Amino acid sequence: MTTVVLLGTGNVATHLFNAFQQTKKIKVVQIFSRNISKNNVGNMNPIITDNLKELIDADLYIIAVSDDAIAQVSDQLQLKNKLVVHTSGSTPMAALNTKNRRGVFYPLQSFSKEKAVDFNKIPLCLEAESKGDETILEKVAKAITPKTYFISSEQRKAMHIAAVFVNNFVNHLYHIGNEICLEHHIPFEILQPLIQETAQKVQIINPVNAQTGPARRNDEKTINSQLEQLNNKTHKEIYELMTRSLIETYGREKL
Amino acid sequence: MTTVVLLGTGNVATHLFNAFQQTKKIKVVQIFSRNISKNNVGNMNPIITDNLKELIDADLYIIAVSDDAIAQVSDQLQLKNKLVVHTSGSTPMAALNTKNRRGVFYPLQSFSKEKAVDFNKIPLCLEAESKGDETILEKVAKAITPKTYFISSEQRKAMHIAAVFVNNFVNHLYHIGNEICLEHHIPFEILQPLIQETAQKVQIINPVNAQTGPARRNDEKTINSQLEQLNNKTHKEIYELMTRSLIETYGREKL
Repeated sequence: MTTVVLLGTGNVATHLFNAFQQTKKIKVVQIFSRNISKNNVGNMNPIITDNLKELIDADLYIIAVSDDAIAQVSDQLQLKNKLVVHTSGSTPMAALNTKNRRGVFYPLQSFSKEKAVDFNKIPLCLEAESKGDETILEKVAKAITPKTYFISSEQRKAMHIAAVFVNNFVNHLYHIGNEICLEHHIPFEILQPLIQETAQKVQIINPVNAQTGPARRNDEKTINSQLEQLNNKTHKEIYELMTRSLIETYGREKL
Repeated sequence: MTTVVLLGTGNVATHLFNAFQQTKKIKVVQIFSRNISKNNVGNMNPIITDNLKELIDADLYIIAVSDDAIAQVSDQLQLKNKLVVHTSGSTPMAALNTKNRRGVFYPLQSFSKEKAVDFNKIPLCLEAESKGDETILEKVAKAITPKTYFISSEQRKAMHIAAVFVNNFVNHLYHIGNEICLEHHIPFEILQPLIQETAQKVQIINPVNAQTGPARRNDEKTINSQLEQLNNKTHKEIYELMTRSLIETYGREKL
């Protein structure tokens, strides 16, 4: 059994705690929270402390606090040569204080406290400074999900950018689709199954092969007619740029 | 029971035929195919004809052929004052010959012949020229899906543009995410659960409220650092434009 001390009581900490409770391979032996008095500890029932000096011995210390606070919490730890990881996608491992063995334990998913999470489906991105620590992290990770990956800090930065494209920008396109629907009194729910199907497709086939539509076919008649119908200047710019990028990707061979 | 003649044996025709076979409320009494000899008729076992002059009497004639061929097939019909619809998202109802009562029966989904389709989840967009014909189309549609909508030709054009944003452009963002992953030797599968979660979210909440990320927060430090890391000129342009559009949408109040 691997022992874990969890630092933080936010979304990630809560979901990790719940996931660890499901397996006998991991025991959360302590939780650190700045504000024990607050109602933010829910059913986290192991020994809770608000004093970093009281941290007990464990195989792994997981700092699951906001990005800004990671370095500070890591600096304040009264531990030496322990395995200490953070859970942030956009923070390098080097943000952690060198007095301990450093690592990253980053679940790539957006969590909200209210929504239950099936950790089985969440990828865990791991990083450590030695083979031995990699083994410990992988053991802990595998106890809650089959999807574990060793990802360097450099790769994690790139992955974060890729996530901005496939999550943040994609959601903004959903918003634009919704705006076009509103303008024409079309219920957005008509588009919901298509949105789901589009996301579903790239679970099995490569997005480059899943592409359809007028820009993929370089169907200039449809493209020009759709551009003419767009009233919003920014929507038009996005339509033009995405279409140009699609034509660059698939070529003009079908003209 | 409503009788239907199906014209065409492509993806849409095949899936409609299969859906109609599941309900006793609809009887497909005839299928028209230009090439009976070909193996394209599968298990479509009612009376098949390749002669438009042999079409028998029915309550509804569904032209499920390629967009280019709709007007031609409709012109060639030897019928008068029958209810004739097409199944195209991008073709106006007016493309149909006026010698018959015209309408549209458009399933908003991308079909492939190999993949079975749960018609229950597919929205059917209906249009007709009279209340009476609307009632017939709704009856047929409701026999295969609860999701039926009356959508005018004008609205359908706008809906098609919205679909380009939430399907074609979204898939292209998935492709760009994949390219960034490839460049940094990150397996794309790490992003797949996030893609699914992003699509899942807007099934229940409005995309404008689901938005997260650096541009939503107007987090200039992260935005500038990510822009610097992008090597591909078009990726950079898309990042800049989407970020600008997000900041226009959510304002600068969080600066």
